[in-house]
Amino acid sequence: MSLRVELVAVGTELLLGQLTDTNTVHVAQQLAGNGIDVLGTHAVGDNRARIAATLRAALERVDGVITTGGLGPTVDDLTKEAVCDALGLETELHEPSLRQMQEFFASMGREMRENNRKQAEIPRGAHVLENPRGTAPGFIAFDERGKFVASMPGVPREMKPMLAEYLIPLLRERYGIAEAITTRYLHTINLGESEIDHRIDDLFRASENPKIAVLAHEGQCDVKIMAKASSRAAAEEMIAPLEREILARLEGFVYARDNESIGAAIVRLLAERGRTLATAESCTGGRLASAITAVPGASAVYLGGVVAYDNAVKIGELGVAEQTLEEVGAVSERTALEMARGARERLRTAIGIATTGIAGPSGGTPEKPVGLVWFAIDDGKQPQSWSFTFRGDRDAIQRRATTMALGLLWRVLDRS
Amino acid sequence: MSLRVELVAVGTELLLGQLTDTNTVHVAQQLAGNGIDVLGTHAVGDNRARIAATLRAALERVDGVITTGGLGPTVDDLTKEAVCDALGLETELHEPSLRQMQEFFASMGREMRENNRKQAEIPRGAHVLENPRGTAPGFIAFDERGKFVASMPGVPREMKPMLAEYLIPLLRERYGIAEAITTRYLHTINLGESEIDHRIDDLFRASENPKIAVLAHEGQCDVKIMAKASSRAAAEEMIAPLEREILARLEGFVYARDNESIGAAIVRLLAERGRTLATAESCTGGRLASAITAVPGASAVYLGGVVAYDNAVKIGELGVAEQTLEEVGAVSERTALEMARGARERLRTAIGIATTGIAGPSGGTPEKPVGLVWFAIDDGKQPQSWSFTFRGDRDAIQRRATTMALGLLWRVLDRS
Repeated sequence: MSLRVELVAVGTELLLGQLTDTNTVHVAQQLAGNGIDVLGTHAVGDNRARIAATLRAALERVDGVITTGGLGPTVDDLTKEAVCDALGLETELHEPSLRQMQEFFASMGREMRENNRKQAEIPRGAHVLENPRGTAPGFIAFDERGKFVASMPGVPREMKPMLAEYLIPLLRERYGIAEAITTRYLHTINLGESEIDHRIDDLFRASENPKIAVLAHEGQCDVKIMAKASSRAAAEEMIAPLEREILARLEGFVYARDNESIGAAIVRLLAERGRTLATAESCTGGRLASAITAVPGASAVYLGGVVAYDNAVKIGELGVAEQTLEEVGAVSERTALEMARGARERLRTAIGIATTGIAGPSGGTPEKPVGLVWFAIDDGKQPQSWSFTFRGDRDAIQRRATTMALGLLWRVLDRS
Repeated sequence: MSLRVELVAVGTELLLGQLTDTNTVHVAQQLAGNGIDVLGTHAVGDNRARIAATLRAALERVDGVITTGGLGPTVDDLTKEAVCDALGLETELHEPSLRQMQEFFASMGREMRENNRKQAEIPRGAHVLENPRGTAPGFIAFDERGKFVASMPGVPREMKPMLAEYLIPLLRERYGIAEAITTRYLHTINLGESEIDHRIDDLFRASENPKIAVLAHEGQCDVKIMAKASSRAAAEEMIAPLEREILARLEGFVYARDNESIGAAIVRLLAERGRTLATAESCTGGRLASAITAVPGASAVYLGGVVAYDNAVKIGELGVAEQTLEEVGAVSERTALEMARGARERLRTAIGIATTGIAGPSGGTPEKPVGLVWFAIDDGKQPQSWSFTFRGDRDAIQRRATTMALGLLWRVLDRS
């Protein structure tokens, strides 16, 4: 059976172009992946009558409408009221949600205001969609024709798990949707999009289901394999041989599958090899440490690091020689190597990694332009160093240098 | 006079979530800034009947519709046909556009195909919107009521100049729009959306122009003041008194105006007060340093920091007493205070800030649950400490703890 829906994003800021509506893209992707057809999407302001009119019109065209946003506690959060108008329902207090919210505020040591209470109200007879990440519950309400409006919060971190764990399973169950698309991501690093195309072009052309796509990000590319089948197991069987072939062709560049981040892949490799890591950062300013400490369990292999922004800190905390800084400067191969060794020795780890460069916008010279970054990895046996010049603004340079450092570290670990 | 429009983005890929619709955001921004009200936006697939139905419905609600996409040469480019259906018009060949296209292809040394010819056709009686960057012209067509549909290509590089140089001037001229909107942002931290709503609710309700809105992010909120006036100066005059009143009511929580980040506000305050900063991070794992080093010029006031993930690093690099760790543990007020002092003393700065907590998912206990974070700031005179328990997953806890640390640091600096 098929299910046809429209999406409605609520928020005046969307109509003013002050916020990019990433929710609609995410919901559309997830629904498509789960065999649910999206026939149209809409954004409407915080206006009760217009939201209700948009919902009514959509319900004439499709089986159901999914809304994001407008469930907050403020006076201009009106989605719930508009849904009731459109479906001819009253709201009622949902006690379990109210209790959950009271516990939430208690745990934050904050007092719950009266206007938060409103968030625990849902249309009479609606099913609650739980919000494991926040206060406001979502809900799905039906009209007498059996058509539905499902409403979720606009905060992506709250909406995404609600969609994946509650709304999509509920809709697939209720509408008996069997087919689904299973997607396998292979994450590569330090390999260009055109190089990947070149290596897998024939597979790319040969295969319709599973379908292959290459997505390029900041300094890394994902190869996406999508298989449409009636069960996940069947889809995995279709994906497996293609995945093996692609892994073989991209050998040494695929650092992780599916949702594993490069940081998680590094933490996993360090744990597998029983080694510990310390970071010494200048231009990346803590981003490298952040990428690693973002991984649960990182503390077992990552002991710590130094953000050595000032030369005095490079000398005092990492033991970089004053002579080195005088002779070749802070942005140099020797400084990077001494920082990496210093981090390893001072923090007593197996491996030290260092970054030093010019993030800009100022500080560049003809010999050392903005974007020049030196990297070093010291394992106590064979110190290695690299330099690259990154383009873009300060943020882009810091992000790309961090991605590169992670990629270099992963490759060194992968081969060790 | 006012002009009310809706936007329609055409393309099946938008409904599959394969493409983020940046056109709608851009058009909405430009129209808002030029005093043209957007009442709703829509995305619809490459389906002639659905595009036409969407246009007809919108024209019942507003003065005009602006579409992007679906003007290309392929069989699934159907916007023009749908516009003709909606307005009851035929298409006609626009000779000047045909010649321009022929010249364009000639200049590219490419032969123009028959299907490109179709791009030179426009609804009978429509005005052409020139396309200085590509082949397909845009157009604006009117129905007998004087309502319009304006269609532009979906390629942003072609759409943006067509909008700025042709469509917006034409609309402002035709509808005699003198007004433009000026927006002021006030960035607050450590104050909940509902608390802000509570404090300014009356202003919120009282004022239509300037209009007030509250936008919530990760642990911080922006208050937005939008004034519609015939000049920027006039708008600023309307904003000023309201801004003063809101600043008074949110005193101690507004860290910046317009585009300044909390990190930039901290770097500015440090520079103004001639003070230097060092960070000592456990659970925030480098995110605090990252937020500060993201600011151009941070190196003048931020000397560096230590990511002290392992206790040995807290002891060795920050001088935390082994006895402290044995007696009260790493996640404690005493450890936070010793880390902050250690950072200040070791890195020889005026101020040291420290974070130590349990980011999870594991490591929590009944006394010290996941999410508990201690913060300390040491200025060599009056060390201060705070503790909060944050909710959410590891990433949320790390992000919220970082935002809280920045907020605490900003408040301490603001009062010093």
